[in-house]
Amino acid sequence: MKVAVVGLGLIGGSFALALKARGLATTLVGVEANAQNAAVALQRGIVESILPLSEAIADADLIALAVPVDVIPQMAVKILNRVAPHQIVIDMGSTKEELCEIISLHPSRARFVATHPMWGTEFSGPQAATVDSFSGRSVVICEKERSDAAAVATVEELYRALGMSVLEMNAEQHDLHAAYVSHISHITSFILSTTVLEKEREEEAIFNLAGGGFDSTVRLAKSSAKTWIPIFMQNKYNILDVLREYIHQLNLFRKALERDDTEALNDIITRANDIRKVLQK
Amino acid sequence: MKVAVVGLGLIGGSFALALKARGLATTLVGVEANAQNAAVALQRGIVESILPLSEAIADADLIALAVPVDVIPQMAVKILNRVAPHQIVIDMGSTKEELCEIISLHPSRARFVATHPMWGTEFSGPQAATVDSFSGRSVVICEKERSDAAAVATVEELYRALGMSVLEMNAEQHDLHAAYVSHISHITSFILSTTVLEKEREEEAIFNLAGGGFDSTVRLAKSSAKTWIPIFMQNKYNILDVLREYIHQLNLFRKALERDDTEALNDIITRANDIRKVLQK
Repeated sequence: MKVAVVGLGLIGGSFALALKARGLATTLVGVEANAQNAAVALQRGIVESILPLSEAIADADLIALAVPVDVIPQMAVKILNRVAPHQIVIDMGSTKEELCEIISLHPSRARFVATHPMWGTEFSGPQAATVDSFSGRSVVICEKERSDAAAVATVEELYRALGMSVLEMNAEQHDLHAAYVSHISHITSFILSTTVLEKEREEEAIFNLAGGGFDSTVRLAKSSAKTWIPIFMQNKYNILDVLREYIHQLNLFRKALERDDTEALNDIITRANDIRKVLQK
Repeated sequence: MKVAVVGLGLIGGSFALALKARGLATTLVGVEANAQNAAVALQRGIVESILPLSEAIADADLIALAVPVDVIPQMAVKILNRVAPHQIVIDMGSTKEELCEIISLHPSRARFVATHPMWGTEFSGPQAATVDSFSGRSVVICEKERSDAAAVATVEELYRALGMSVLEMNAEQHDLHAAYVSHISHITSFILSTTVLEKEREEEAIFNLAGGGFDSTVRLAKSSAKTWIPIFMQNKYNILDVLREYIHQLNLFRKALERDDTEALNDIITRANDIRKVLQK
């Protein structure tokens, strides 16, 4: 299978490395607007060559879109405008409603498979790409019924070959769940970071005392604005909904602490502990 | 050195295992009120025997208090009431002001060294104790000038032998920093968990979609109420201060998102990214 990866950042780069390591691509070409990222991708052997979009996609069996989500919809349309009936286009973005609406009536809609591999790190760029990504994680395929069945089968097989389990969901459900299990975590980490940096001017103290759980909770605060602002904007209403609920529950905790209401604190923490069941099953 | 560990949970158990593995204790006895924990501790070889407090401490060169922080001050006093001039008592709790005040005028205050090894996990009990804990982390020693110099030297040497770096701080500074780098992280995780569990009734979805950063951000939500409520109560004013600032900054983020103010979002995220410098130096 000839593969073209559009966008050689963390996700596109890791996808290419994983395909290469498992011998799943006969050729691997990339499209990358950022010259520095393009150079790193070539240097690391992530792709064989960097080509302009039209050349890269011309000969590809599979075209994978791994650019920021604010760019995906327009790029999806441009690629679908040129796609031949045997070609498959996927995206790997973290939001789906906007994309699925934009391409919904495109005459080549069936060639597109909307996917979201649930993997990422706080790092970005091709230098952060790793070969053992994706494996053991889930990938969501949205609006499967709008895609050609054989194209879906090919894409699912590919993700399974990378060690992923495949889930189906409509775009609306996807964006709601993604707000809860991914997007909000980034916001709580960003704000934990700004809060601590704002208050703790003695940065040495933060570093030296880390080990009490701060590191893992704040890890995602290293994530890139370029990736995340478009995600927050595209999933704005779901995220605002989660964020309001989160702030409400924080205020309940704060009030319980102010009142020395250890019974209420115990109730909150005991309910929070239930996440054990969810994450360990 | 003959060591008595009072409280064989995660911290006390791990401390005992680490001492044993490095041959730093000639005898290791434990005090544990919970019969099940006592049985696990013996079964795992964490201590050689479980004794009543008075027997356990009678013969010990070092007595380490690793019980919840609401129990530490009274127990510290009871132990200091019986301590001989060659014995050393330490605590390993996550708050220090209350303890240091309670023991401040005790005639044997100099035999006590107040310590906080900055290590922990979301698990509790002797079954969660691990031998490779502490190493590579910091330990804070508070109010060092109130302790006997030779006792401090012995305790520092012991922690260094476990691979820890030693910091000094007064109790007030300690509790303030601990609120920022440890206590608040637990609260944000607890509340992330309750928020997601409240809204996401389809628990299957949470589990399947995890991988987008949720796991690490919510990890601490598995932590025990029994450990954490006393910490929150003892460090109430510092924690309320951090919590108010955190909620304030979350509201700034929420408003920026509501207004589509990508410039403000970019400013927040860019500031949050500065945590990279602090955590990587």
